[in-house]
Amino acid sequence: MSVLNDEAFMKRALRLAKRGEGWVSPNPMVGAVIFKNGKIIGEGYHRKFGQAHAEINALNNAAESVEGSTIYVTLEPCSHYGKTPPCVDRIIASRPERVVIGTTDPNPLVAGQGIEALKNHGIQVATGVLETECKEINESFFKFIQSRSPFVTLKFAQTLDGRIATSTGHSRWISSPPSRRFAHRLRHIHDAILVGIGTILSDDPELTVRLVRGKNPLRIVLDSQLRIPLTSRILQDQDQSKTLIVTTDNSEKEKILKLKDLGVDTLILPANQSGNIDLNLLLQELGNRNIASLLVEGGSGVLTALLAANLADRLITVIAPKITGKGIEAVGQLNITNMENAIGLIFRKIFRKGNDLIIDSRLNKLF
Amino acid sequence: MSVLNDEAFMKRALRLAKRGEGWVSPNPMVGAVIFKNGKIIGEGYHRKFGQAHAEINALNNAAESVEGSTIYVTLEPCSHYGKTPPCVDRIIASRPERVVIGTTDPNPLVAGQGIEALKNHGIQVATGVLETECKEINESFFKFIQSRSPFVTLKFAQTLDGRIATSTGHSRWISSPPSRRFAHRLRHIHDAILVGIGTILSDDPELTVRLVRGKNPLRIVLDSQLRIPLTSRILQDQDQSKTLIVTTDNSEKEKILKLKDLGVDTLILPANQSGNIDLNLLLQELGNRNIASLLVEGGSGVLTALLAANLADRLITVIAPKITGKGIEAVGQLNITNMENAIGLIFRKIFRKGNDLIIDSRLNKLF
Repeated sequence: MSVLNDEAFMKRALRLAKRGEGWVSPNPMVGAVIFKNGKIIGEGYHRKFGQAHAEINALNNAAESVEGSTIYVTLEPCSHYGKTPPCVDRIIASRPERVVIGTTDPNPLVAGQGIEALKNHGIQVATGVLETECKEINESFFKFIQSRSPFVTLKFAQTLDGRIATSTGHSRWISSPPSRRFAHRLRHIHDAILVGIGTILSDDPELTVRLVRGKNPLRIVLDSQLRIPLTSRILQDQDQSKTLIVTTDNSEKEKILKLKDLGVDTLILPANQSGNIDLNLLLQELGNRNIASLLVEGGSGVLTALLAANLADRLITVIAPKITGKGIEAVGQLNITNMENAIGLIFRKIFRKGNDLIIDSRLNKLF
Repeated sequence: MSVLNDEAFMKRALRLAKRGEGWVSPNPMVGAVIFKNGKIIGEGYHRKFGQAHAEINALNNAAESVEGSTIYVTLEPCSHYGKTPPCVDRIIASRPERVVIGTTDPNPLVAGQGIEALKNHGIQVATGVLETECKEINESFFKFIQSRSPFVTLKFAQTLDGRIATSTGHSRWISSPPSRRFAHRLRHIHDAILVGIGTILSDDPELTVRLVRGKNPLRIVLDSQLRIPLTSRILQDQDQSKTLIVTTDNSEKEKILKLKDLGVDTLILPANQSGNIDLNLLLQELGNRNIASLLVEGGSGVLTALLAANLADRLITVIAPKITGKGIEAVGQLNITNMENAIGLIFRKIFRKGNDLIIDSRLNKLF
């Protein structure tokens, strides 16, 4: 089998993997393709957290015996018991000739052991086929599994002259309907959304995925003084979409109880010197709760604090074809006086959505 | 000849026209292709202001008799005496069978008369082939010839968070070397560059095209109180690149004489109520001086004033993959409070240059 063919089948497996986007977290997205005698005899992907892994689905779907086949899988098959038994045992039992793996599993519970097991049973193993792509689709998972802290994406929509609102705070709507659907799709593929209390007070948003088919992520509000009005939209319908209010010790205990009555959880974290919630502790705590990916939608205070603390991994900027002049900017004081000390980004992808432009960048080169 | 073939030859003529970019203003860029018996027998373009027009160059270059051929020309051939005799007479004399024209000439001295003359001599004429493209390459000329006011392009480089400098005014360098070469190329294709005195005082720029092969445009400084230091770089080497200082009546007469000694011209214009130079009058005056295109490079005050007065036609924004937080923005107070009243843009072209992104937009849809 030529390298080119290996890549073609791995590409197919990547496309399959992507179908699980938004449904499998904190698991990784994985796709698998089984090839034998000149044709694909089975395909599968990890569809939903807690359900069968990609390899198992592909094996189950195989139209004939897998013996002597080549199995393509985007991520190293697991060798440990999690929600499901180890995939590697099932692969070995089905006796393929060869297994082609996109990237090894960074999960310390797997980390090469899956590959070892396959080789020990006389199965040829190739790794590193489309490795970058196979890592990139699971960048949240890779960060989370290695740090136990969520992959943090900052998202904001601004005018070409860099304003997220006019000087009076008016911002609806900067971006076009296709961009707003894109933003809802982003919510779907994250485990949680984070906003500051200012955004709740000024916009009273729902923070749901109502414009697209998808799942509502956990909605988190940073509210150190527990100023959230009990009538806020985000506090209603907790059976459809959960909300977590993060606050400090200074908050009124009675209000916490009232929130509980509405079905809203509160997380109390220590404040830092300036009275704000400690963001490092917040991310650790969210990691403990299996939040692998966090979408931060503003406002300026939260975005700035995360950038200042070097806690952001990805930045998605929607640029609308508009000029407003003096207004509110996404990023506030970072105490950077020399251009050479600016926070460096990598523009990973740039594309149009409706009339808008979307810049998808990374703060650290993970791979 | 099929429409598709017409477009293919017009595309070739457009490519030829583009070679004159930066050298022909205030004339339009024009390209011409002569096709006969299955092959191109002649090509030409307008190379330099004052020299032969595209059609004449193509006729002169023709490898055989043009009789019975098809001539493709991006702009209607001129029918009047300018710096050179009317092209249309020369075309008629060479007896082509057919002339295909991209767009009619907006110049009131031509405006369809060229086409009329060709038809009157029994030559078939087709118009409107790749009309939009043929207009777009000459958008400066079209605006200038119809309004006698230059086509105004605002250009600035900013970080992704919309800052053209840090809070201390530090801006070197926001953009990457390829973007800076692109910026010099932009200078070459404009008749004049405009900056505010603030930019001179803080950066002491040369405003030349030293990074590319090209011509230095006229350098214009808005300096209502004539604060420019006589040692500024922009005042040196007037034999290589001319500078014009625009000021008001309030300025010291003696300094004007000193500037004259350096070979620097001064233009005195009335100030408006706030003591600033009247920008409408400035553009009229530049039009009178045959400046068909003006590149405005900042700073924020000048950019804002032109946007507020609705005098900008095009906006070129370089976005660097950087975040600086609180700093200086390109556009200041426009008194826009509602997002619906934002100045609307059209993102015409978006492309990468080095690590940067360039957004080329238009403020008014001219065509």
